[in-house]
Amino acid sequence: MFQTDTLTIVGPGLLGTSVALGLKARGFTGRILGVGRKPETLQAAEATGAYDQVTSDLPEAIRQAGVVLIAVPLSGFKTVFEQVAAHGQPGLVVTDVGSTKASVIADARVYLSDLSRVIGAHPMAGREQAGPQAGLPDLFVGKPCVMTVGPADDPQAVALVESLWQTLGMWLIRMTPAEHDQKVAVISHLPHLAAVMLVQVAQKMGGLEVASTGFEGATRLASSNPPMRADILEANGDCVRQALQAFRAACDEIERLVQEGDHQAIVRYLESVRDGRDQWLNDKNGS
Amino acid sequence: MFQTDTLTIVGPGLLGTSVALGLKARGFTGRILGVGRKPETLQAAEATGAYDQVTSDLPEAIRQAGVVLIAVPLSGFKTVFEQVAAHGQPGLVVTDVGSTKASVIADARVYLSDLSRVIGAHPMAGREQAGPQAGLPDLFVGKPCVMTVGPADDPQAVALVESLWQTLGMWLIRMTPAEHDQKVAVISHLPHLAAVMLVQVAQKMGGLEVASTGFEGATRLASSNPPMRADILEANGDCVRQALQAFRAACDEIERLVQEGDHQAIVRYLESVRDGRDQWLNDKNGS
Repeated sequence: MFQTDTLTIVGPGLLGTSVALGLKARGFTGRILGVGRKPETLQAAEATGAYDQVTSDLPEAIRQAGVVLIAVPLSGFKTVFEQVAAHGQPGLVVTDVGSTKASVIADARVYLSDLSRVIGAHPMAGREQAGPQAGLPDLFVGKPCVMTVGPADDPQAVALVESLWQTLGMWLIRMTPAEHDQKVAVISHLPHLAAVMLVQVAQKMGGLEVASTGFEGATRLASSNPPMRADILEANGDCVRQALQAFRAACDEIERLVQEGDHQAIVRYLESVRDGRDQWLNDKNGS
Repeated sequence: MFQTDTLTIVGPGLLGTSVALGLKARGFTGRILGVGRKPETLQAAEATGAYDQVTSDLPEAIRQAGVVLIAVPLSGFKTVFEQVAAHGQPGLVVTDVGSTKASVIADARVYLSDLSRVIGAHPMAGREQAGPQAGLPDLFVGKPCVMTVGPADDPQAVALVESLWQTLGMWLIRMTPAEHDQKVAVISHLPHLAAVMLVQVAQKMGGLEVASTGFEGATRLASSNPPMRADILEANGDCVRQALQAFRAACDEIERLVQEGDHQAIVRYLESVRDGRDQWLNDKNGS
């Protein structure tokens, strides 16, 4: 069970508020502070009942914290690390929900000389809706959480952060920031871009008037928050471009198959991909 | 309200059985015959209670029909038209649920000299599960049904087929077979291929172990039936290749944006696509 006197959640949106709700629902006894800038977000966060206090005073909320959880868009991380450097207590532990991990370490390095208690995390959970009011106490249950733990990290800080995500019901998987960024480019950032491309092609070539549930499901990610997504594409540009190149190669392969029109070859190709997906789903649901 | 003495549904799978269930639920008083080849499919179809009779005798089921609905994979259409030519009563009306429309007309032409009572339809509804047991009486409610009606078509046959789909709760949209095939390549066949490519890239580059609900939703179509999908890709090859080329152009545009790293340009691009999708959803749900 995760334990600290005061958890400060910077960015009381969907993910931050789901953490707060999840901890409260599981009997967490410490205080939870929610820090935001917009009055309407703070009001909505307060209305969820997940926070003991909401505030726009980032320095003070960091001063009081035993653990800081950063849950703002990637472009806001630098500001938070700057305040952590200026106002954090000795021994303060920092974790985050950032969608990329190398950029978070790079941002932290600008302001902090000791990174041993900055323990990167990426809880692989979300939903289409955004904001505090979309928060769910069980959002993280049964989902993977990537932990980017390095050899120089403080073992007590690592254990504390791991207990946070495990308390929320996640299973942990450790990898390096580079490994993480390459994998999420493939399974998260590329699917978002594919959805965007599908909508763009339909806008250009027409057909939306007959599009139905299949198209809606395939393009759901294209409705996600543009500034947040732009942050991710910039922070993970190299890996995203690699993934796009592999995607284009797959596109070429399919075009060749369609052009050649060999029924059995097309069926075999589609079967191998379908079987791979079904296997993945079985593994995921069995784990 | 749709009315005929005997409706013969060739292919008692998901769509065929949903038609049968939907008509029975809405008080259709004629007989419904279900024709299939595999004993296990016929058994499952019978168990749904949607059919008055199931049979593997295609010639006899066509002989008894006032309306034939073809709901087999595209590669099976030729056989059905051949039997329609040999055993159909004078005045027999034929419609179908085929995912492409030019190929259906071409197949019909091989066996029928008079196409005026072959009224092509493509009900834009489906679900991930297949087979008679997946049939739903309300599968078609509120969804678009494309009708490929030509100037030479028999008005009574057109009215009869339109009343079939309207009875099931669909709204109708008329277009030429060529228009239809181009549009479904964009909003149906391309999204399937994009899902396939996403899975393939993940299989090649890794990352499935941390993939979660976003990836699952974006790749759902990759689990659809390979032989059925191969039929579609072959029947609609030219339009699919055009759509793939537009898709690759969108891919190039995104890669250029990511490479240039202009935050505002990326945000504007993502916003215009998101707004287009949200507008489409609003229009769709308002109609």
